[in-house]
Amino acid sequence: MNRVKVAVLGASGYSGAELAGIIFGHPYAELTFLGAESSAGQKFSDFYPSLKHIQPGVFESVNIEELKGRAQAVFLALPHTKSMEIAPALLEAGLKVIDLSGDFRLKNPAVYEKWYKTKHSAPELLEEAVYGMPEFNSEKIAQARLVANPGCYPTCVDLALWPLVSLGLVEKDTLVVDAKSGVSGAGRKLSATTQFMQVDSDFCAYKAGGVHQHIPEMEQVLSLAAGNEILLGFTPHLLPVKRGILATSTAKLLRVCETEDLIEQYKKIYSNACFVRITGPGELPSLKSVVYTPWCEIGLCVDKRCQRVVVVSCLDNLLKGAASQAVQNFNLMYGFKENSGLEGLSPAV
Amino acid sequence: MNRVKVAVLGASGYSGAELAGIIFGHPYAELTFLGAESSAGQKFSDFYPSLKHIQPGVFESVNIEELKGRAQAVFLALPHTKSMEIAPALLEAGLKVIDLSGDFRLKNPAVYEKWYKTKHSAPELLEEAVYGMPEFNSEKIAQARLVANPGCYPTCVDLALWPLVSLGLVEKDTLVVDAKSGVSGAGRKLSATTQFMQVDSDFCAYKAGGVHQHIPEMEQVLSLAAGNEILLGFTPHLLPVKRGILATSTAKLLRVCETEDLIEQYKKIYSNACFVRITGPGELPSLKSVVYTPWCEIGLCVDKRCQRVVVVSCLDNLLKGAASQAVQNFNLMYGFKENSGLEGLSPAV
Amino acid sequence: MNRVKVAVLGASGYSGAELAGIIFGHPYAELTFLGAESSAGQKFSDFYPSLKHIQPGVFESVNIEELKGRAQAVFLALPHTKSMEIAPALLEAGLKVIDLSGDFRLKNPAVYEKWYKTKHSAPELLEEAVYGMPEFNSEKIAQARLVANPGCYPTCVDLALWPLVSLGLVEKDTLVVDAKSGVSGAGRKLSATTQFMQVDSDFCAYKAGGVHQHIPEMEQVLSLAAGNEILLGFTPHLLPVKRGILATSTAKLLRVCETEDLIEQYKKIYSNACFVRITGPGELPSLKSVVYTPWCEIGLCVDKRCQRVVVVSCLDNLLKGAASQAVQNFNLMYGFKENSGLEGLSPAV
Amino acid sequence: MNRVKVAVLGASGYSGAELAGIIFGHPYAELTFLGAESSAGQKFSDFYPSLKHIQPGVFESVNIEELKGRAQAVFLALPHTKSMEIAPALLEAGLKVIDLSGDFRLKNPAVYEKWYKTKHSAPELLEEAVYGMPEFNSEKIAQARLVANPGCYPTCVDLALWPLVSLGLVEKDTLVVDAKSGVSGAGRKLSATTQFMQVDSDFCAYKAGGVHQHIPEMEQVLSLAAGNEILLGFTPHLLPVKRGILATSTAKLLRVCETEDLIEQYKKIYSNACFVRITGPGELPSLKSVVYTPWCEIGLCVDKRCQRVVVVSCLDNLLKGAASQAVQNFNLMYGFKENSGLEGLSPAV
Repeated sequence: MNRVKVAVLGASGYSGAELAGIIFGHPYAELTFLGAESSAGQKFSDFYPSLKHIQPGVFESVNIEELKGRAQAVFLALPHTKSMEIAPALLEAGLKVIDLSGDFRLKNPAVYEKWYKTKHSAPELLEEAVYGMPEFNSEKIAQARLVANPGCYPTCVDLALWPLVSLGLVEKDTLVVDAKSGVSGAGRKLSATTQFMQVDSDFCAYKAGGVHQHIPEMEQVLSLAAGNEILLGFTPHLLPVKRGILATSTAKLLRVCETEDLIEQYKKIYSNACFVRITGPGELPSLKSVVYTPWCEIGLCVDKRCQRVVVVSCLDNLLKGAASQAVQNFNLMYGFKENSGLEGLSPAV
Repeated sequence: MNRVKVAVLGASGYSGAELAGIIFGHPYAELTFLGAESSAGQKFSDFYPSLKHIQPGVFESVNIEELKGRAQAVFLALPHTKSMEIAPALLEAGLKVIDLSGDFRLKNPAVYEKWYKTKHSAPELLEEAVYGMPEFNSEKIAQARLVANPGCYPTCVDLALWPLVSLGLVEKDTLVVDAKSGVSGAGRKLSATTQFMQVDSDFCAYKAGGVHQHIPEMEQVLSLAAGNEILLGFTPHLLPVKRGILATSTAKLLRVCETEDLIEQYKKIYSNACFVRITGPGELPSLKSVVYTPWCEIGLCVDKRCQRVVVVSCLDNLLKGAASQAVQNFNLMYGFKENSGLEGLSPAV
Repeated sequence: MNRVKVAVLGASGYSGAELAGIIFGHPYAELTFLGAESSAGQKFSDFYPSLKHIQPGVFESVNIEELKGRAQAVFLALPHTKSMEIAPALLEAGLKVIDLSGDFRLKNPAVYEKWYKTKHSAPELLEEAVYGMPEFNSEKIAQARLVANPGCYPTCVDLALWPLVSLGLVEKDTLVVDAKSGVSGAGRKLSATTQFMQVDSDFCAYKAGGVHQHIPEMEQVLSLAAGNEILLGFTPHLLPVKRGILATSTAKLLRVCETEDLIEQYKKIYSNACFVRITGPGELPSLKSVVYTPWCEIGLCVDKRCQRVVVVSCLDNLLKGAASQAVQNFNLMYGFKENSGLEGLSPAV
Repeated sequence: MNRVKVAVLGASGYSGAELAGIIFGHPYAELTFLGAESSAGQKFSDFYPSLKHIQPGVFESVNIEELKGRAQAVFLALPHTKSMEIAPALLEAGLKVIDLSGDFRLKNPAVYEKWYKTKHSAPELLEEAVYGMPEFNSEKIAQARLVANPGCYPTCVDLALWPLVSLGLVEKDTLVVDAKSGVSGAGRKLSATTQFMQVDSDFCAYKAGGVHQHIPEMEQVLSLAAGNEILLGFTPHLLPVKRGILATSTAKLLRVCETEDLIEQYKKIYSNACFVRITGPGELPSLKSVVYTPWCEIGLCVDKRCQRVVVVSCLDNLLKGAASQAVQNFNLMYGFKENSGLEGLSPAV
């Protein structure tokens, strides 16, 4: 079988670099192009010395004509707005596109414009774009030309809350999510707030008060699952760790529930999911269960005093929250086993 | 002026050691006794090498007769149950007692027994014991023989929520607190869960579902402030840092409020507080503002989409959450300036 | 091709667990047995939650008769003394053995007894045991029944210094090695010195003054390379990180050398090495280039003022310093490509 | 007694900020001026939120005429070259100057120019400038108008090696120093190499091969102590911690020595030192003994196999390596007790 030729655009960023590493080792894919406009000509290994062995080893700037000859599938690990600028031409050129930015996740361009503070330049693709959550959307993904890979917070939160809202177990205006992310979530750009001296031994909330741009994406997924509009209270935080997101979500239960029963329902819903694990009663997941792996892990318990359910979910923001989920989508789009190229990732400690 | 002679019992633990360091440098106190039963005879500096210079330098086991001659005030940095065993005899001997354990914080012995899973052995002292929150209780503290120093989570959460509930601004059954603590909160005891290999780069929730023993303490304070019973949704987490607690608390607002107005009300309420700071609009506190300092810092914002208020509060669990708050209480009990002995603490980074 | 059936004894320790994870994903090996005496019956995933997906999932206690039917090759990730107790019977039973302990590395039982403070119980195997450094010993490894996998510090230091001493470039009594290891090097045993509160933000030397048990192993390798006896000044340190060793080695040069020339000689010597990389002039390796990967990276420079060469080498102590090097040896022993099962390991950050 | 009015120039940097915090709490000093050219008009607390309570709270740009009226002593926490530009005018204006940069430490302007790659603009002050190492120079410091506060690495290394070389115990061309510093040593300037994602869980050497600008300073001190020229092998490293330097220094002993005897000699030499502690036999210092404190701690042992002595020394680079040492010098210059204003600093953990 011929390998699928793959380009990664935005390979100088963290998600792009993880993608490059995974694709380089993928049994059915061949990494043929590392795009990075502002770093074109520089060596990939100067940015990512642990990946000195991968090929190609030099960033190139993108030329669509040339890309046509060198790739069949293109991952866009670009900042938002950059993806919607280039995606139409890539599709036009007959390439399949998996976009890791926020550009094609929201169905309503007005919502995009409100939260991303910029006009959408390719609204005609929003309907076609398939939201790449393999757990709930695998058939559409398999047919897609353009997949919008979910955001890191939305993957973590939606996998945690989808069962609750789709089963109608919770009061819809009581959902409160407290989410914590490692520093890689802020991207590779130089910033005073991500200096070691600022972050080490520190912890803080940011974008509190309902202003994080991932909120409409989570609400879109959960509203669809619930069958009516869901509003989320969402507070993101910055953890002094490199990788990982852990979200603690709570909601008022509409009726008395037992922890064990909820766990069983979650296990049933995710019984076919490749990389979602539900922990047993009394166990709660922690970052170390998932960082450097493609897994999302979810634990639950009921607070009977308050009749609240607490759902703790976590994943590696660069993998299940970005690169490895994108590869799950790639595998589905090409009919490969969904976990192809993703099994080796899992250090013990 | 003669210095007050001070004993610290439980000086081998983190809070006790911080207390010893502060008292050693206190202008109006003299450290005369370091109690630690199981480590009696060992050198304090073998446990705390950064405090090699303090005197006395050796742990002793406690004998109340002897203590009578050597101390006027006693700090109990003991595990719960140990404090209530010894406090009656210390008071009997004419010593003033500041207890950092949970033993004298709850007014109702039945509530104590439910949450701490043990019978209270000195319930006759519960009424007399003064809850040592200097911001709201300074007059009673000044008269007290026995002060119950608040818990670390309760200090952080109660200072954050007291204004909201006492002003009647929030729906009382919508309070959700997501709290995160550094590892020193788990105490000095050897444990698999606090090994470096378990904690570093990790993050997790624990005691989720309404089972943490600090819950009734917070509810007691807030119910009193509200004038009716408050139940809290409370999920604690373990941060990969040595020191610090940050709590993110949210509640539904009963009416439309502006962030700026809430901040003004908080500032007014804490205008006389020695070590509480309210951040300005758009600013949120972070651990680095408070660790290694005696301060609690609080920031607020309103999420208008959900009509929720988000309050972020933080402090150093070993200082404002334990030792320095105990010294504020000590200062009040002896008529010293409330910040005596606490001003030097504050590194820049 | 049938997969080789593999048992890992000591799978509850960090190196054993990494081995289990690698063998589980190895294309030509089948993990059939996880040995752990004191944890027999417990779930592997309770110790290593990131490896919940591997099979078998339960620790067993070792019975050699049974092992004979279930394994062809056995990795011993046991503490020293335990390996030499069991290895003779395993070999007797026709199994191939790769030992990660210190028991079969030293050729002279008297030296073993001096440094490990215990009598060697299987000295008759010391001659047969092949020192498992694939870079210099691959042919003997390919024929071996019993391979002694090198220690973590020795791998890092010997790969750094072997070229210098074998080429006769340095004064032999001027070798000074300052080595720094992450906390996993101390093993999984509960200890006061490896608590988060002790290690985080800390750094210290330990076993200084020529007493670390890895010293004779390094001196044995380097003396052989030099053709006469080498004594090393060696000071190990504990880094506040989970994984990784970095060694800074210096020696007086016997004659004037250029950095560039030394680098060329190193590159030539390691041109066939699977997992050794030499950095270019002006570049020095860092832990992030190698942790979570099977690579050792080495950089050099000459201090002309002092006529000293400085060699900086690093690796992941659990991989190239233990588990992945053991798998290199396994691959050589069975005629597989030396990097089989090791290519997927390499996150970008 | 009137307090001495003190200005801190370069108060936006880490050392300057620590100085500001210490001076604000100093019993005999009054902080009157926070200089920071490029940040003039900004709030000090926006840079250092833990020091929100200090006054003055706003950075100002420097005008010497104005400074004359507002300060008697000036600390220069400026980058090198900036100090030598302004120092002459400050002295001219009758102010006492304590300079924390490298500008006045080297006696020979040619050496300065070689290592700092720039011409010295005030060579006429080099003879007058007193090297501010209170342990060996207190009388001259007491008389000085201009004190050159030692560098962070030199303080740590010189205190460790001064006794050995001044007592003539070691071969002078065998001194090898392996030094490790926390990230604050790199200063506050935004840099790719000090981003959290680069530093966390990492460790590396830098400026290896005898090129660090602190080398001539160490050699100047040690050559003076030895009575002849000393050349040091010196390799600095970057630790993934905020604060602290630990140096491991070794040298060949000229004759057989016992660890205990050396320790006694060190203790004698430092018996009057305010903030130098020698650990006992078998103990080695670690960063946690000294960070956030004004102490330098030193431990020793002899490696009899190699006839080498190993000296481990450590300190907080922002305190004993910068700000608190500068305050020791200030205290000596004004006849205050040497530890004035420095006693409160010492958290337990």
